Amino acid sequence: MFTLVGLGLGDASDITLKGMSAVKDADIVFLEAYTSFLISSNAEELTSIYGKPVVVADREMVESGVVLDNAKEKKVVLLVVGDVFGATTHSDLIVRCHEQGIESRVVHNASIINAVGCCGLQLYRFGQVISLCFWTETWRPDSWYDRLKSNRAAGIHTLVLLDIKVKEISDENLARGRVIYEPPRYMTIKQALEQLLEVESYKKGGAIAADGSTFAVGVARVGSQTQKIVAGSMKELLGVDFGEPLHSLVIAGDVHECEQEHVNLFRLPQQ
Amino acid sequence: MFTLVGLGLGDASDITLKGMSAVKDADIVFLEAYTSFLISSNAEELTSIYGKPVVVADREMVESGVVLDNAKEKKVVLLVVGDVFGATTHSDLIVRCHEQGIESRVVHNASIINAVGCCGLQLYRFGQVISLCFWTETWRPDSWYDRLKSNRAAGIHTLVLLDIKVKEISDENLARGRVIYEPPRYMTIKQALEQLLEVESYKKGGAIAADGSTFAVGVARVGSQTQKIVAGSMKELLGVDFGEPLHSLVIAGDVHECEQEHVNLFRLPQQ
Repeated sequence: MFTLVGLGLGDASDITLKGMSAVKDADIVFLEAYTSFLISSNAEELTSIYGKPVVVADREMVESGVVLDNAKEKKVVLLVVGDVFGATTHSDLIVRCHEQGIESRVVHNASIINAVGCCGLQLYRFGQVISLCFWTETWRPDSWYDRLKSNRAAGIHTLVLLDIKVKEISDENLARGRVIYEPPRYMTIKQALEQLLEVESYKKGGAIAADGSTFAVGVARVGSQTQKIVAGSMKELLGVDFGEPLHSLVIAGDVHECEQEHVNLFRLPQQ
Repeated sequence: MFTLVGLGLGDASDITLKGMSAVKDADIVFLEAYTSFLISSNAEELTSIYGKPVVVADREMVESGVVLDNAKEKKVVLLVVGDVFGATTHSDLIVRCHEQGIESRVVHNASIINAVGCCGLQLYRFGQVISLCFWTETWRPDSWYDRLKSNRAAGIHTLVLLDIKVKEISDENLARGRVIYEPPRYMTIKQALEQLLEVESYKKGGAIAADGSTFAVGVARVGSQTQKIVAGSMKELLGVDFGEPLHSLVIAGDVHECEQEHVNLFRLPQQ
């Protein structure tokens, strides 16, 4: 039996009673640790709170089949930050369960895709989500631009998810066959704003105002006690320190009357 | 202190530990009972599981201010099915807390907006959500059509939320000043498909194929033990009995290779 359990966004207490009961009942509990991370808890803490060893599973471990091999005979839980289907890798696990005749189930939880409603802009007025990657000298993807442009042209909001790099190996170490991991990196709202403005500066498609005057909302550590939400022009947000990861960003479309009052609670004081 | 607690989608065990702790600590617990409903639990059951009286709050009660008036002096929890910001009415409560100097906080949970990822289509390939209403003889809104058309033109999926009518009073009873509630009504996937196809038949904009051949996925009671997911053409889905509420529908855009295998698990057997 294979159970994928969403952990929600904040800390160990964001698991549901249903998820907790799956954990208590499990023979082995893995924590998927490469598509996201829990803001205020780590595996040791989960282990102590759940009263059960929580094994950190990196990408290699999940994709190698170790997790599912165990699920053939045992009750295996894979804990996933946010909700279960935020990352394609979990869809793939369900498909492989089906192929291998392993019973599977899912315990849902909050993900940034719905929790971002806390920023005051209405969820049903969001268009397609876009994701930004850290650029390298040779790889500067900007294929999200047209989606942003199309959302903005329709007057709707865009949730921008920011890159997470965990257990990366540098090109140099890779070339020399050395398994040395770089420190984890989490894209900040400032880095995202800079990337968005840079792409606008050469695409010139008007997806956002090139002068940074487009209205946006930065959201950091949503669902945790240190959650921070600030609304303002992109230019204004460039100057805001959002603190520790995880960061996400919303580029607003038209802000309707029914959204105005709520999002105004997070506006920077006008100078 | 006012705490909005998302209950998730299935039953009483879908509350988070954080939400449960807010309930235990509360002086009064209300259950918001008009924007959605919990598939497998009612207020009596929640009362018995939480060990605390759960007061059903209808729209009138929430909007009249009774809930917030209590929160001025006491710890009030408002339980909300799904996540907190699925309905505008909850944004409004946060704004009113701010105006009245009442401290507020939010405990997030799954909503259909992210949990629909269980249908096998990837969340980051969904466009703007649309909502269908029950039509009356004189009121047949179809303003969602352009949003569906624009999502489909971009090759992305559309989550279709279906109407819920709870505590409605008929025009006749309203005219006579009689407070007699009609039985609750929940739009079925079949009714939604019919409405979609009817609007296409007169708009003729090609948002969906007029012959019902567009690929779609019906999802019923997501997150509960009786969850049912069926994928097929809209015409095929018209013949499927999805059972009890709540129903939702996804009109697919282009189905990518990485989605194909997962969504295929839910396909009707080909005749």
